[in-house]
Amino acid sequence: MRGRMSDARSYAAPTPLGSPPPTEAVARVLLSNNPGLAAGDQVLVYDAWRDHTVAKAANCRKLDPAQAPVQSWLGVLGMPGRTAWAGLKHIGKPKPGDTLVVGAATGAVGSLVGQIARLQGLRVVGVAGGAEKCRHATETLGFDACLDRHQPDLGQRMADACPRGIDIYFELTGGDVLTAVLPLLNPFARIPVCGTIASYNATTAPEGPDRLPALMRLILTRSLTVRGFIVSEFDADRPAFETEMSAWLASDRIVHKEDISHGLDSMVPAFIGMLEGRNFGKALVRLD
Amino acid sequence: MRGRMSDARSYAAPTPLGSPPPTEAVARVLLSNNPGLAAGDQVLVYDAWRDHTVAKAANCRKLDPAQAPVQSWLGVLGMPGRTAWAGLKHIGKPKPGDTLVVGAATGAVGSLVGQIARLQGLRVVGVAGGAEKCRHATETLGFDACLDRHQPDLGQRMADACPRGIDIYFELTGGDVLTAVLPLLNPFARIPVCGTIASYNATTAPEGPDRLPALMRLILTRSLTVRGFIVSEFDADRPAFETEMSAWLASDRIVHKEDISHGLDSMVPAFIGMLEGRNFGKALVRLD
Repeated sequence: MRGRMSDARSYAAPTPLGSPPPTEAVARVLLSNNPGLAAGDQVLVYDAWRDHTVAKAANCRKLDPAQAPVQSWLGVLGMPGRTAWAGLKHIGKPKPGDTLVVGAATGAVGSLVGQIARLQGLRVVGVAGGAEKCRHATETLGFDACLDRHQPDLGQRMADACPRGIDIYFELTGGDVLTAVLPLLNPFARIPVCGTIASYNATTAPEGPDRLPALMRLILTRSLTVRGFIVSEFDADRPAFETEMSAWLASDRIVHKEDISHGLDSMVPAFIGMLEGRNFGKALVRLD
Repeated sequence: MRGRMSDARSYAAPTPLGSPPPTEAVARVLLSNNPGLAAGDQVLVYDAWRDHTVAKAANCRKLDPAQAPVQSWLGVLGMPGRTAWAGLKHIGKPKPGDTLVVGAATGAVGSLVGQIARLQGLRVVGVAGGAEKCRHATETLGFDACLDRHQPDLGQRMADACPRGIDIYFELTGGDVLTAVLPLLNPFARIPVCGTIASYNATTAPEGPDRLPALMRLILTRSLTVRGFIVSEFDADRPAFETEMSAWLASDRIVHKEDISHGLDSMVPAFIGMLEGRNFGKALVRLD
């Protein structure tokens, strides 16, 4: 969504000025001319920030509220879940004993990356904003450690938390987390690049020094893999993901937390708050 | 070799001060206690900058001068050839119609990357220092275009030479070539990182702006793969490489050029000259 609010070249076309930002939504059918959908059905639809819409039935996926709370398809069973699962699997290539670091550790994607990695026998170190989120990451999500990004000396604390170096850095944030991670990357480490929230609002490059040449040298001397991706690349994996994640949810092996705002007027503050890390869990806006 | 002349952390341990720099060499056997090697045999050996040595037969590979000039195993049939072949194959993943860019286009690795890519149906754009090297790249090596890095406006000339963008950038140089390439990279482009010559002598980061955040954003928004490697990672491919490259050489489909200096005293100037781009072809030093 944030990428579409800019005309910088990206995988997502910019939203025209004056149009509502596009988004996935869970909606309730009010009226249907299609025999496959009836009033009252709940569907997943790719639409926009608005309270009513006209959609083709072919673009609606009917959800089963008995299987999971319907909003799960916006989070743990939806795009954020698939992003975490597929980016970790296909690019992170986790092996038991690896050390994984992820920022935004209590967010929609980061919380799942860390939990899936723990299920696969990795050491998981998160970074989050504030003591409460860090406690949630270690006590509820089961991370091995979580570092408060608001405290000083992140680099030293990261080194202490990763005594065997870092094998996978799941990049969501950029900024200080990336800076702390770089010197600790092991040979053949993998960096799935899924987001760089810290720089989304930058309009010019920060004042130097220019760390680009050193990054390229690091990629060379440590045989790193740095790989940007969007979840649509792995759409073919959707059934496998839903099967595995549903089983984890059913056996309480994956925890997910929601941060719900109410009303269309809360869309903008909720969205900005999410980018600034003020949400605690998957940011959702409920309109009914 | 250059990496070993620094105690910065790398895949190669530093050469101790006072020791000769390690290198691959082709040597002639003077005396042998092993039945598999006789005086006069020519061998490939991993040794150091010196004119005589004592080596175990197990560490010597006997070469067949009837198959190719023996120094070929230091270049086109050796480590540089394997580097070009394996980096392109496994990380570059070339597809017919792709556009590939490589700097150091007339050097030991770059000249082979470009020629192999041409054989596979790619559009190949090189960068080299000076008009003579650029002519060699297009007229003798068969590159589609070669840009002189000593002329101004490399970025605009690169854009003109790559009308369909860039799908593979084989990174040998860093510096201005990388800067010119970045804005032109297509979605899902691959960047095998094999060298960053332009920054090998840097002891501090260049004055800003800091382009690291923008690079990470580019990797994200264009789903780029940036992957450092050393040829030893692909050692298992050596037989397949030698078979394919020998066939290309036998049918004159690959051209290779040597830049030979003479005498042990020329090692240092030849090595520095190679890093500064003064060689024209694979830099070799001949001692006999």
